[in-house]
Amino acid sequence: MCELLGMSANVPTDICFSFAGLIQRGGNTGPHSDGWGIAFYEGKGFRTFKDPNPSCDSKIADLVQSYPIKSRAVISHIRQANRGEVSLVNTHPFTRELWGRYWTFAHNGQLADYEDWPTGRHRAVGETDSEFSFCWLMGELEKEYPQPPTDMLEVFRFVTKCCDKLRERGVFNMLLSDGEYVMSYCTNHLYWITRRAPFGKASLIDEEMTVNFQEETTPNDIVTVIATQPLTNDETWHRMKPGEFSLFQFGELIDGNAEQLKDVAYAKPKEKKKRRL
Amino acid sequence: MCELLGMSANVPTDICFSFAGLIQRGGNTGPHSDGWGIAFYEGKGFRTFKDPNPSCDSKIADLVQSYPIKSRAVISHIRQANRGEVSLVNTHPFTRELWGRYWTFAHNGQLADYEDWPTGRHRAVGETDSEFSFCWLMGELEKEYPQPPTDMLEVFRFVTKCCDKLRERGVFNMLLSDGEYVMSYCTNHLYWITRRAPFGKASLIDEEMTVNFQEETTPNDIVTVIATQPLTNDETWHRMKPGEFSLFQFGELIDGNAEQLKDVAYAKPKEKKKRRL
Repeated sequence: MCELLGMSANVPTDICFSFAGLIQRGGNTGPHSDGWGIAFYEGKGFRTFKDPNPSCDSKIADLVQSYPIKSRAVISHIRQANRGEVSLVNTHPFTRELWGRYWTFAHNGQLADYEDWPTGRHRAVGETDSEFSFCWLMGELEKEYPQPPTDMLEVFRFVTKCCDKLRERGVFNMLLSDGEYVMSYCTNHLYWITRRAPFGKASLIDEEMTVNFQEETTPNDIVTVIATQPLTNDETWHRMKPGEFSLFQFGELIDGNAEQLKDVAYAKPKEKKKRRL
Repeated sequence: MCELLGMSANVPTDICFSFAGLIQRGGNTGPHSDGWGIAFYEGKGFRTFKDPNPSCDSKIADLVQSYPIKSRAVISHIRQANRGEVSLVNTHPFTRELWGRYWTFAHNGQLADYEDWPTGRHRAVGETDSEFSFCWLMGELEKEYPQPPTDMLEVFRFVTKCCDKLRERGVFNMLLSDGEYVMSYCTNHLYWITRRAPFGKASLIDEEMTVNFQEETTPNDIVTVIATQPLTNDETWHRMKPGEFSLFQFGELIDGNAEQLKDVAYAKPKEKKKRRL
């Protein structure tokens, strides 16, 4: 399988800490040594760093870890190949333009019996089921909204219906972003956590590293991190359920289909506190 | 304006030497300090490094210069903004998927009265005339070839006709690649050189750096470099004429509309020698 990492923040934030933990799973503390990639949005623009080599000993990963690129939406992936050879063309995340926005996608899982699905004008360049499902998703979106839509919440609800169909074909854990919204969809393994004031300390599971977010942030910062497995061992991560989707904008959970959603009332300090236990 | 750099090679080759010269023009020996980018193809896959900061003091540019990424098709660009603010979304090169291939484009020049041109399903995300003209080009290609074409030479001849139309709207120097072919189109400033055995030495104009290609290559290597201005001061670069296009595949010039083309008979040792004078 693979591992996913996503971030949504209300102010440009670097993901060096979380990425430092993730890349150790790319051949060191984890078996995901078949390539890695990370896409940073800056406004409507983005830049992606990719390498078909293991992230744990990638010079480019070293740069990404040490060079703080600040972003409000990030999607990252480390790969353990199942479908498609180990090569750059099969390395996540994948990006396509739709409605004058860049859409970036990363997938964890494996699908079957999807090959005859129509992908519209979007064609997969590589051989992965992941890129194919992304192209199919883009095709479905374009069919549903031939013109750029205005209600993006409705759009992501439609994406969720498409993800439900993909989940019928296997394991489909996904991160999707257009630079403003970051959506996660879960089949089996996906966790998220929202960090906000009062900030505390956190320690990575995969690396001897502790950060005091108090020193790294301002009181107004709101940062959500999404990952296949929790990256820290001293924070409470929200585990997503099968078929659950979560939509984040500027760090906040703004939509989803989880029962827990009604409890996640960020505005209420009491519950905010509860969430930090 | 901006500066372009492209490479086509028959074996995966790093472009560190040429890139080292180019990035000095990004704020040091040249005024092109409004961002830079470089796309490396590896098979059908590609990776792009981009930075809206000046290349001459970019940490990412340092990595690209020191970390030899070997590729058979490279497109790079350093920007001096005219249309569109200095930002990542306006930083070249731009990439779109068409016919199951990734197409990468970089432009030097400035266009006028193009805004009402139809771009088909391809929409520009940023504000540059460059990205817009690329989207229009992709739209024209898709209109002409709704299904993936087989005769790519015919396709690039069609691209040339589109470039002729763009040239009517201003200065349009362009590099375009699908990972196998690298095409250059000239309005005013574009040079190229093909290096092959017997290899010699070359010295950069913009940096104290000399390379002995003899030591860096094998006798079968064929590498073409395309640039807005020659990068070396001790080699003979071929200057392209207005309206001239050149198509390279695996380092070789395989098509073009230049009178000089008939003289460029690489198969003949005599003329090969002549071209090295």
